[in-house]
Amino acid sequence: MTLLPPGSTLGILGGGQLGRLIALEAARLGFDVHVYTQSSRDPATRVCARSHIAPWDDREALAFFSAACDLVTLEFENVPVATVEAVEAYGTPVRPGLFALTITQDRAVEKAFLNDVGIRTVDWAIIDNLDDLQAKLEAFGGQGILKRRRDGYDGKGQARIKSPDDAATAWDALGDKPCILEAFAPFAFEISAIVARSLSGELASWDPPRNEHENGILARSILPSGASAETEAKAVAAARKLAEGLDYVGVLALEFFVMDDGSIRANEFAPRVHNSGHWTPEGSYTCQFEQHVRAITDWPLGDTTRHSDVVMENIIGEDVFAGLHKVDAHTRLTHYGKREARPGRKMGHIVTRKTP
Amino acid sequence: MTLLPPGSTLGILGGGQLGRLIALEAARLGFDVHVYTQSSRDPATRVCARSHIAPWDDREALAFFSAACDLVTLEFENVPVATVEAVEAYGTPVRPGLFALTITQDRAVEKAFLNDVGIRTVDWAIIDNLDDLQAKLEAFGGQGILKRRRDGYDGKGQARIKSPDDAATAWDALGDKPCILEAFAPFAFEISAIVARSLSGELASWDPPRNEHENGILARSILPSGASAETEAKAVAAARKLAEGLDYVGVLALEFFVMDDGSIRANEFAPRVHNSGHWTPEGSYTCQFEQHVRAITDWPLGDTTRHSDVVMENIIGEDVFAGLHKVDAHTRLTHYGKREARPGRKMGHIVTRKTP
Repeated sequence: MTLLPPGSTLGILGGGQLGRLIALEAARLGFDVHVYTQSSRDPATRVCARSHIAPWDDREALAFFSAACDLVTLEFENVPVATVEAVEAYGTPVRPGLFALTITQDRAVEKAFLNDVGIRTVDWAIIDNLDDLQAKLEAFGGQGILKRRRDGYDGKGQARIKSPDDAATAWDALGDKPCILEAFAPFAFEISAIVARSLSGELASWDPPRNEHENGILARSILPSGASAETEAKAVAAARKLAEGLDYVGVLALEFFVMDDGSIRANEFAPRVHNSGHWTPEGSYTCQFEQHVRAITDWPLGDTTRHSDVVMENIIGEDVFAGLHKVDAHTRLTHYGKREARPGRKMGHIVTRKTP
Repeated sequence: MTLLPPGSTLGILGGGQLGRLIALEAARLGFDVHVYTQSSRDPATRVCARSHIAPWDDREALAFFSAACDLVTLEFENVPVATVEAVEAYGTPVRPGLFALTITQDRAVEKAFLNDVGIRTVDWAIIDNLDDLQAKLEAFGGQGILKRRRDGYDGKGQARIKSPDDAATAWDALGDKPCILEAFAPFAFEISAIVARSLSGELASWDPPRNEHENGILARSILPSGASAETEAKAVAAARKLAEGLDYVGVLALEFFVMDDGSIRANEFAPRVHNSGHWTPEGSYTCQFEQHVRAITDWPLGDTTRHSDVVMENIIGEDVFAGLHKVDAHTRLTHYGKREARPGRKMGHIVTRKTP
């Protein structure tokens, strides 16, 4: 058989909560999990068979890790390309691979790729200097969101521009780095489409949640989304097209703005399991974490049918016990085991199920 | 708050598949898991924050383990009483505790306790020697099942007696050890009731599965059981009564014979999560492993409603990849990560969901 059998070792690049949740589901399927990360305090290190604590560019540690693993995956998209190249050079497959990673690490390349495969985004432009910014702001009606091309997440590395007068301040705030400018989209609400594609090309997708952000961080995901069936179908079709266009293996998430007329504009995608899919263990028959492992190991994908209406709420900052008082028969708390709470830090999430 | 918060350390005595599955759910709730077991090859050791590999009577290792854990639980019922006493003597609570363990480790005490709290069993008698056996066989119609009072599981330590002529052979086969004789019950089929009771006394129960055994080992559990609602209700009520009678904390399973007239006879109970509850992750909103952790940490219990018809099949012996070919969209394979298959060894299980 070509599928990866239980007892094999799955490596994960990154040790955060997404790695932790992938590791738990991989273990359910019988895999040994090795985590490669930078700190022994990272949440995934406490649920795996072995942790490798080393910098991303430690060739010796990567050699050992590659030899110890039958297959490697990623839990976040900012793993350096050279790290993935090193693992692949040692002959250990990495899924999803370099192509998706390279595209998503640069917002300009990402937007261009989405457009190339026929997925509509908000209007956007490459900004290399303040002159570019001022010129494009004029074209975009004097408003927009300036984002660094690289290394942004959870609202970091971006600045909202409300009038052309803000241009110089925004440009300086982002450190004179290559950026893109996105036109402001007067959207009604946001949704995301999460899809899985296996090594054999099998596709599966979940109902898209409505996502509410606060301070640039996902606050909650709500199912059903309230979008029309047609809008949801368009979002799912776009995400499937993206997965095929990338020859992608694993779970990916594509975020959209939904406009008042029900049309959608893609915003960005994540080549990994996604916070807006954290409702899937409680609300559907197969969760995104198990599905990701099934996809990369080439097992048949599981049924993604949603059986319940659910709301997923992130527990952010506050204290390490935040959310505990909300636990009751119809909720499930997932806690990442982090020892310290910090403002804006994701500590866990809680899913409330509204049985039909 | 009195409930045990995430970030605390949960110890598990025993490192088999039940410990592995408890560990995975405990991690989802944010606990660090320490496993105390006899071999570094045991399945639970590869999914926990720390393993303590030592004999049951290693006082030094138990001292360390007790100090490292905020709370300790069990994954199998034959942990020596002295081991649990040692952990408790160091001030670390063990749930479920000594009382349930003491009762279940001796089949005579177990049967007597069931009868004492008003739960009907098959007729049984204490057998201390061959004379006892011959006398009781006569009273039980010449047939019965002779079982050692201690250390039996999965059909080991027992002998079926079909006529009084088999008595001496059976007695010798069980090694001249204290036994009980159970009258042969001409049952129609078997079911089990699984209940959870929290430290605060909250109770929860699942639909009882129909259990089919082969060679003394559970082969499959089927939901719905096919028993009448009245029969199922009697089984659940008996298991709840048992949990309260024991002042039990955690998940326990009580097995029954269902007679042709729909009446039930309790057989034995297990003071732990149970193989016949392995359908709960795929078929109900809260699985037995998560519920066990919620019960012992005194969190509110989760909703146990069954959302699907399911069949759970054990994967026994054969090879380590057995069952892999049965994986499809409507099945979920749970593999215990054991490296060697042996006849009669449980390697994993597979749940098939029949969506209503």
